[in-house]
Amino acid sequence: GFFTCLEADGKVYDDRKFCWLLSRQVWTYARLYQERPRFRLPHILEAAKKGADFVMKHVKDPSTNKCYLNLTREGKPLKSQRTIFSESFYVMAMAEMYRVTKEDVYKKEAMTMMKQIVKWVKVDSSGLGPRVQPPTPTSSLAVPMIFLMLIDQLGVMDPAHQAGYNDLADWCLEDVLKHVQRGGLVLENVSEDGQELPGSAGRLINPGHAIETGWVLLERAVKHGNEDLKQVALETFITESFNRGWDDEFGGLFYFMDADGRPPLQLEWDMKLWWPHNESMVAFLMAYKYTGEEKYLQQFAKVFDYAYGHFVDFKNGEW
Amino acid sequence: GFFTCLEADGKVYDDRKFCWLLSRQVWTYARLYQERPRFRLPHILEAAKKGADFVMKHVKDPSTNKCYLNLTREGKPLKSQRTIFSESFYVMAMAEMYRVTKEDVYKKEAMTMMKQIVKWVKVDSSGLGPRVQPPTPTSSLAVPMIFLMLIDQLGVMDPAHQAGYNDLADWCLEDVLKHVQRGGLVLENVSEDGQELPGSAGRLINPGHAIETGWVLLERAVKHGNEDLKQVALETFITESFNRGWDDEFGGLFYFMDADGRPPLQLEWDMKLWWPHNESMVAFLMAYKYTGEEKYLQQFAKVFDYAYGHFVDFKNGEW
Repeated sequence: GFFTCLEADGKVYDDRKFCWLLSRQVWTYARLYQERPRFRLPHILEAAKKGADFVMKHVKDPSTNKCYLNLTREGKPLKSQRTIFSESFYVMAMAEMYRVTKEDVYKKEAMTMMKQIVKWVKVDSSGLGPRVQPPTPTSSLAVPMIFLMLIDQLGVMDPAHQAGYNDLADWCLEDVLKHVQRGGLVLENVSEDGQELPGSAGRLINPGHAIETGWVLLERAVKHGNEDLKQVALETFITESFNRGWDDEFGGLFYFMDADGRPPLQLEWDMKLWWPHNESMVAFLMAYKYTGEEKYLQQFAKVFDYAYGHFVDFKNGEW
Repeated sequence: GFFTCLEADGKVYDDRKFCWLLSRQVWTYARLYQERPRFRLPHILEAAKKGADFVMKHVKDPSTNKCYLNLTREGKPLKSQRTIFSESFYVMAMAEMYRVTKEDVYKKEAMTMMKQIVKWVKVDSSGLGPRVQPPTPTSSLAVPMIFLMLIDQLGVMDPAHQAGYNDLADWCLEDVLKHVQRGGLVLENVSEDGQELPGSAGRLINPGHAIETGWVLLERAVKHGNEDLKQVALETFITESFNRGWDDEFGGLFYFMDADGRPPLQLEWDMKLWWPHNESMVAFLMAYKYTGEEKYLQQFAKVFDYAYGHFVDFKNGEW
């Protein structure tokens, strides 16, 4: 297993192992090995395999398929969340491992967990742990977004699987588009029947999530030649969300915003985190790639300048 | 029920009703009516009663005694937490209502819920909801601290009850003192057997909690003539924690700190929130009251100047 919390100089800050990061590291090594000739090195593959072994052995509760949020250094479980994100990163890591190694064990892990997540989200969520059922069922943008990523990853693993997920993809697209409210504003939480929710949770905007959803939708639109979806992805999810989330005074993207301009409940709402900037750079580069329009390259440059001016640690490397 | 999220000008920001705040508002009206002649007014008592009725009717799941974190405007449950804090504020509200009204229903509610919380914390926590049992059982400072407050409140409600909680109070004191580590540093999380925990959770300092615990301990020490406890409360919990938490550069108390001076995981760690300043003012005033030492009054003035210089909304009132 990998340490997932390091200091600027590489020293271990916390020896807890966070399962999103463990799986992401496995995925990254596997993808680098697969796609980048300069990383097609035995020790990169070896690191991915060792990491995958640790993840398979410790992240999942085999009796329920639920994955933990984090583990002790030795791999003992510490915490679980009533979400599907540890499980989603598990699927992505296993699918990429199968793509690289062609070992059936990884494919089986990926497919079994994917089936489990779909069941939790679409059929019966009780396996995620008991929670209060709110009187108005809600849809969170993060769920259909990560499903679209999972479907894409399973298609990359094995193109033969792609068609099997068309129904799920259609459901995701429908669910994602419900989050466009007030004629072009992407809200993080809406009701399951596509209405704006009352209160601050209903007014919540997460520009990073909206932009991230934008490039996922754009990729899908291009792959399927869906011109309408392409325009929604470019104009609403990427451009509108970026313009709304960008701080014209000090630069950078806000973490959370309120659709009515009030301060969100989250104390960290006006902080500038690295990840929404990363999502924006991905989104604008992809927008430029698929349209050739100069304006997207200019927006990329704007985010790049902010990110490299504020996040990069030029002394120690990394962000 | 009361709206619990208002804007500066009093407009409703969010119509969700948070159960800590509902109970706190009931308690506040009841205590004002009881102890402050200028608030001994029929409409204050009426507001307390109406609030208490709403709380009793909606906050508690009668089949489990678990209280919700928040409700819809109409009182339908939205969210539950695997903690004892909604329940603790429920006890305090009900106990104060009995003290004021002498109606048995409130006393029964307070005593039943208190018994339930003690059982969850000391005997079997499964009623709080399933959670991963970490390999090293931990003690969080907030739990014995709020128990000491509850015991005090039940004693205020009915002095005859005080003695019945002596064993619990002893357990709380023992548990609180485990959090003093490294010869005088109050850590938020330690192992149940009083050892420092590994990683950033083990290094976490919450100056506001430490100072709040300080005044709770001080009050108890004075009441029982316990000179050793009085000194620990004054020197370690209040003075040391305040000096460590105070930002010498910009003033104000940090929200979270790391015992080794690293940045805590919480994004909001270096924000200045109103409540630790409030706890500090209570603590230093109380320290001055019980010692007559000028230095505590000076520290109070320092926090007062910061708080009134930064938090108070002189236009609309409130903080």
